[in-house]
Amino acid sequence: MALPIGPAEGSYSPGLEGVIAAVTSISYLDVEHEQIVVRGYDLIELARQMHYPQVAYLVIYGSLPSADELADFNRTLQEQAALPEAAYRLFQLMPRTTEVMDAQRTVISFLAGFEDPAELRDPSMQANLTKGVRLLARMPAITANAYRTVHGLPPVEPDGELGFSENFLYMITGARPDAQAARIFDMSLTCYIEHEMPNSTFAARVIASTLSDIYGAVAGAAASLKGPLHGGANEAVAHMLLEILQRGGASVAEAYVMEKLARKERIMGFGHRVYMKRYDPRAHLMKDYIPQLAGRRPEGPELYRIYQTVEQVMLREKGLFPNADYPVGLIYLLLGIPIDLYTPIFLAARTAGLVAHVAEQHANNRLFRPRVLYQGPWGRHPNGQP
Amino acid sequence: MALPIGPAEGSYSPGLEGVIAAVTSISYLDVEHEQIVVRGYDLIELARQMHYPQVAYLVIYGSLPSADELADFNRTLQEQAALPEAAYRLFQLMPRTTEVMDAQRTVISFLAGFEDPAELRDPSMQANLTKGVRLLARMPAITANAYRTVHGLPPVEPDGELGFSENFLYMITGARPDAQAARIFDMSLTCYIEHEMPNSTFAARVIASTLSDIYGAVAGAAASLKGPLHGGANEAVAHMLLEILQRGGASVAEAYVMEKLARKERIMGFGHRVYMKRYDPRAHLMKDYIPQLAGRRPEGPELYRIYQTVEQVMLREKGLFPNADYPVGLIYLLLGIPIDLYTPIFLAARTAGLVAHVAEQHANNRLFRPRVLYQGPWGRHPNGQP
Repeated sequence: MALPIGPAEGSYSPGLEGVIAAVTSISYLDVEHEQIVVRGYDLIELARQMHYPQVAYLVIYGSLPSADELADFNRTLQEQAALPEAAYRLFQLMPRTTEVMDAQRTVISFLAGFEDPAELRDPSMQANLTKGVRLLARMPAITANAYRTVHGLPPVEPDGELGFSENFLYMITGARPDAQAARIFDMSLTCYIEHEMPNSTFAARVIASTLSDIYGAVAGAAASLKGPLHGGANEAVAHMLLEILQRGGASVAEAYVMEKLARKERIMGFGHRVYMKRYDPRAHLMKDYIPQLAGRRPEGPELYRIYQTVEQVMLREKGLFPNADYPVGLIYLLLGIPIDLYTPIFLAARTAGLVAHVAEQHANNRLFRPRVLYQGPWGRHPNGQP
Repeated sequence: MALPIGPAEGSYSPGLEGVIAAVTSISYLDVEHEQIVVRGYDLIELARQMHYPQVAYLVIYGSLPSADELADFNRTLQEQAALPEAAYRLFQLMPRTTEVMDAQRTVISFLAGFEDPAELRDPSMQANLTKGVRLLARMPAITANAYRTVHGLPPVEPDGELGFSENFLYMITGARPDAQAARIFDMSLTCYIEHEMPNSTFAARVIASTLSDIYGAVAGAAASLKGPLHGGANEAVAHMLLEILQRGGASVAEAYVMEKLARKERIMGFGHRVYMKRYDPRAHLMKDYIPQLAGRRPEGPELYRIYQTVEQVMLREKGLFPNADYPVGLIYLLLGIPIDLYTPIFLAARTAGLVAHVAEQHANNRLFRPRVLYQGPWGRHPNGQP
């Protein structure tokens, strides 16, 4: 069959690997220099020196905030952090079989109805950023309550005295976090804030390119992030570390990995399509905080030894380095965060990036509408007609 | 800036126009022969000779059903048509500012929680088709009640004695449809059932490629379809025809279009990225049913004259033919279907195609993860460091 248009058959790239699908000035994975460039800054420098709201402001508006701008932005995030009462009733309607990720996605979709319809459909930069910041402000309450509802816990309201990341961790755990926990959690959110165009960001841009609104685009990103080949990886890391712990700890970790590899099973948290065989800079940053958190759980030191052993075996056997999900999976375990919240937290943090991408897509839009290579049957007729 | 990988800068195709993004055996737009090929059949032949459930079976399972298979399939669609009671309570929670499309998307997302979590995450062909057929069965109740709730009408339950399309139209209008209305509505659903890889189908495949589940993928497609550059077009057609009617009818239709074109505004329902300047075969089929429906509304004949005038002017001025949304917009008006249901009906009909695409993606998966062309700043440092 001859191709109707476009590239020669040989140039079809499954998963669009290596294909440029968008022009952006938000972020870029500079693999050569092992740098995640966000609005021109090195993400790791930002994570070390700034707090999440500052970097969120940068991602969304394109430049770091002045002191006044940051104060305004933090005030907006606090004032808009609460959910409408109906959202809490929606949580109550969800059956206990609901997964946290699905509860979070459903409430994001639901909240679209609380916007004025004309404003909801307005694709202008200003309207998108207004809606986007409101959604970002609400993500901690959406996320923490998605978890609490599914597990039969009473809902929790934002604590108006806490900053964004502190409040988020408070709503998750039910207790105000200490400074160390708050800082490391904040840094993990910054690591997740923006990362060029992974599947979820691409899904959001594809959806937004019909001039559909930001709630739909973020709901689509949530759907994408649920997949085990994407956001689900940090949860898989935690489950693996706990499984090895249960089977005997660090002394069985090497055998565990070798058996998995022999069965051609995937070890999550290693490698990355773009980084290939280099170190994910976010993993490099976050791993240094594991030792100081290991004492927070009795099994913490053993989990850290398992973590180190698996990392060594993966490098020796596959030449693969950890990606961000590997240390963050363990850090969230040590912070006492329930595992089924890891991916929803990732989405909450990434909301800043998604807002920027939707606004950028709308500002210079072209409908995504690629074509296919058809390999099905031809020339069939109903009722056996020739 | 040098590109890190992939095509030379000049070959970047905005919106992935002309780029092959998937291999499929579900459907293909054969522009050269002006044919929509669905599982090897001509979609127009199918729409003329078959009913929607037969074609849905073909799209989902790959071959037309035997009499027994069709009876089983129809029984399944009927048995699974009702929504859990909590879905009706969710509708009641939605504020009146909710758009029908958003209400529909939220309930699709919500229903994921009623699946067994392990089955929900199972990407096997059989699990996908089981979940997909259940979702398809429920789409009429989801769609009709999304509309009814937003407009403060009492909910409606499926009529277990009616077939899929008849029941759908019954739930929308609240009255059992006559044979003519049921048949033409059924044919419109078949026209919308599957259409290669438009933005919504692409969004669903992108999401599914993380091995995320079918509910998330269809919710993402719903988000995509809401956009005025995609599903919203059939609604825009109806609004335009009514606006011209209100301004004076067919006698002012030409001036109306010429003014819009002079202001470089878009006339919805004409042209198509893939069909380019040829006639959409679905539009060709559906337009023949307008005259027999025109008598159903007092203003029907005048609307039809407006319709014809706008078509003539668009061909003369822009060389553009109608796409499917143009006749279907008028047909739905004449059938008394509320305008804000047009796009949700499109999604309900397309669900069969989406189910097939998600299952096909999972069966031969490769994560969608394209790259970007970065045109933002470089080399910035926080706190003014060099």
